Amino acid sequence: MCHTCQVTTKDISRPVCILGLGLIGGSLLRDLHAANHPVFGYNRSRSGAKSAVDEGFDVSADLEATLQRAASEDALIVLAVPMTAIDSLLDAILTHAPNNGFTDVVSVKTAVYDAVKARNMQHRYVGSHPMAGTANSGWGASMDGLFKRAVWVVTFDQLFDGTDINSTWISIWKDVVQMALAVGAEVVPSRVGPHDAAAARVSHLTHILAETLAIVGDNGGALSLSLAAGSYRDSTRVAGTDPALVRAMCESNADALVKALDEALTILHEARDSLAAEEPNIEQLADNGYRSRIRYEARSGQRRAKESVSPTITSSRPVLRLHPGTPNWEKQLIHAETLGARIEVF
Amino acid sequence: MCHTCQVTTKDISRPVCILGLGLIGGSLLRDLHAANHPVFGYNRSRSGAKSAVDEGFDVSADLEATLQRAASEDALIVLAVPMTAIDSLLDAILTHAPNNGFTDVVSVKTAVYDAVKARNMQHRYVGSHPMAGTANSGWGASMDGLFKRAVWVVTFDQLFDGTDINSTWISIWKDVVQMALAVGAEVVPSRVGPHDAAAARVSHLTHILAETLAIVGDNGGALSLSLAAGSYRDSTRVAGTDPALVRAMCESNADALVKALDEALTILHEARDSLAAEEPNIEQLADNGYRSRIRYEARSGQRRAKESVSPTITSSRPVLRLHPGTPNWEKQLIHAETLGARIEVF
Repeated sequence: MCHTCQVTTKDISRPVCILGLGLIGGSLLRDLHAANHPVFGYNRSRSGAKSAVDEGFDVSADLEATLQRAASEDALIVLAVPMTAIDSLLDAILTHAPNNGFTDVVSVKTAVYDAVKARNMQHRYVGSHPMAGTANSGWGASMDGLFKRAVWVVTFDQLFDGTDINSTWISIWKDVVQMALAVGAEVVPSRVGPHDAAAARVSHLTHILAETLAIVGDNGGALSLSLAAGSYRDSTRVAGTDPALVRAMCESNADALVKALDEALTILHEARDSLAAEEPNIEQLADNGYRSRIRYEARSGQRRAKESVSPTITSSRPVLRLHPGTPNWEKQLIHAETLGARIEVF
Repeated sequence: MCHTCQVTTKDISRPVCILGLGLIGGSLLRDLHAANHPVFGYNRSRSGAKSAVDEGFDVSADLEATLQRAASEDALIVLAVPMTAIDSLLDAILTHAPNNGFTDVVSVKTAVYDAVKARNMQHRYVGSHPMAGTANSGWGASMDGLFKRAVWVVTFDQLFDGTDINSTWISIWKDVVQMALAVGAEVVPSRVGPHDAAAARVSHLTHILAETLAIVGDNGGALSLSLAAGSYRDSTRVAGTDPALVRAMCESNADALVKALDEALTILHEARDSLAAEEPNIEQLADNGYRSRIRYEARSGQRRAKESVSPTITSSRPVLRLHPGTPNWEKQLIHAETLGARIEVF
């Protein structure tokens, strides 16, 4: 249940069908199942599917049968697979579930939307991205409550790109939002471009820097690895992510990531030159970095949480309430995107 | 108490006098006091000193009186201040505690040792560096048990640089080691140069990358900060460190840090070019970073801890036992430095 707006799975109007039961898909299956919402899933790996079935979940390793069932039950389909598997699943949906609404949870949104538009499926698609995870993957990494207080981005480009919008698309959009709220996430609306630019900065660049730090530390040999402490452990944590997943997200968001990386390189070269000077001085870097981190803590609610005695921790993101389909809602969504605001729907 | 070798504070032959009661000095005071070892301290900030006194600790804001007491009790003096305050404290020790053994806990070791040698104090000095901390500072940030399972580097350059070694120096060296073991740390011996090169890679570079990531994320504005999740939070954590402390450690280890940063820049430029190519491909970065992280996890014992049911978690660092002062101990120390091994003394 959403911790502030009381949304439950009763607010989702359709059963949910999840394709891919890794960390994200598996955790979503667990939460919806725990809330008694009708949910079933497909997993390519038979061993993963069997583990899920053994735990009492309604899961199959037969994609065609799962999609046919989704079609007959008018389920909302969730593509919970890496970018590299999106094309083949879209083709399967075209064939076996030709009318279902669907969403995805890939960490890049432009590339997915392009693949959707290439098949002319945008009238029944709503992009999404839960900003949650650990360095582990697969069904074994899935867990209860993964999305609690996580941001879940929901896209809305169709309102501005000439897609023929009707009440069906709006109801799919609403279901995706309600599903995210029902598992405890904070929904932030964004179009695919701004999402990808932001994700490049705060997620994909984090991976690139973590891999780099892991390598430079390791290059120092045994003494260096022995001396590594908490800061190195935390900053290299995501370098423990399956390299195939790191590649899938970074390579499919290359344009935005190159821009973020170029900004980082400019800052790093300035720091390098300041350190190599006769009187090393990194005042600017240390001061700016500190102020940026404090702003982030304020936004994420970490500062407030430290000082609060309330058992309910919410972020400090502003919140906007909107009613999908009313004349003003496009403007409200753009407003929320600009503010990085979370939304509630009524 | 050391969790594997049973060292207690009984093995420290002198009282301990701590100058500077911030995160490190304050936490050391707490642990030694809790173990009933005679310990007293000095803090420049009167409010910090008063807080410590109010909690029942033997603390003063009078440096001269504290050093005179250290002299009369033959205490081991611990300089627990940032690099920028080392020179003035060394001068005070020269004047008021002209015969005491002393150590420091600064995160760079060459700069401190140079300052020590410039005053011809190396025959009673043993450098050390506990690799422990949080992003917070000051007495208020000090805590019990901060050093448990942390690495605590102890230096030994005097055995190789022509310093006139006698039994007093060896007993100071042994006391520093026993003090670190008694508060639960793992002692890794290293000379100042190899320490600083390793610390540049795994600690100071971590700070530079964290500041940079914090700034690039912040540059993305409200949406970007709203979308930042766990990986960004953990990777920018140390950007929340007091900028003055970040400057003190990075600027005083500038030579080694520039080398580590140049390695990082080479890797980042390669990644940048791979991402900007027609077919973006960061296979090399993702694979190498993953393997490096796995090697780090193996070394730090994190992999083993995950798989173990034992309540005692130790690192996977090799352990060498040695007896200070025996003919072979210089070789054993170099051996331990090369392996990044922890030591126990007998």
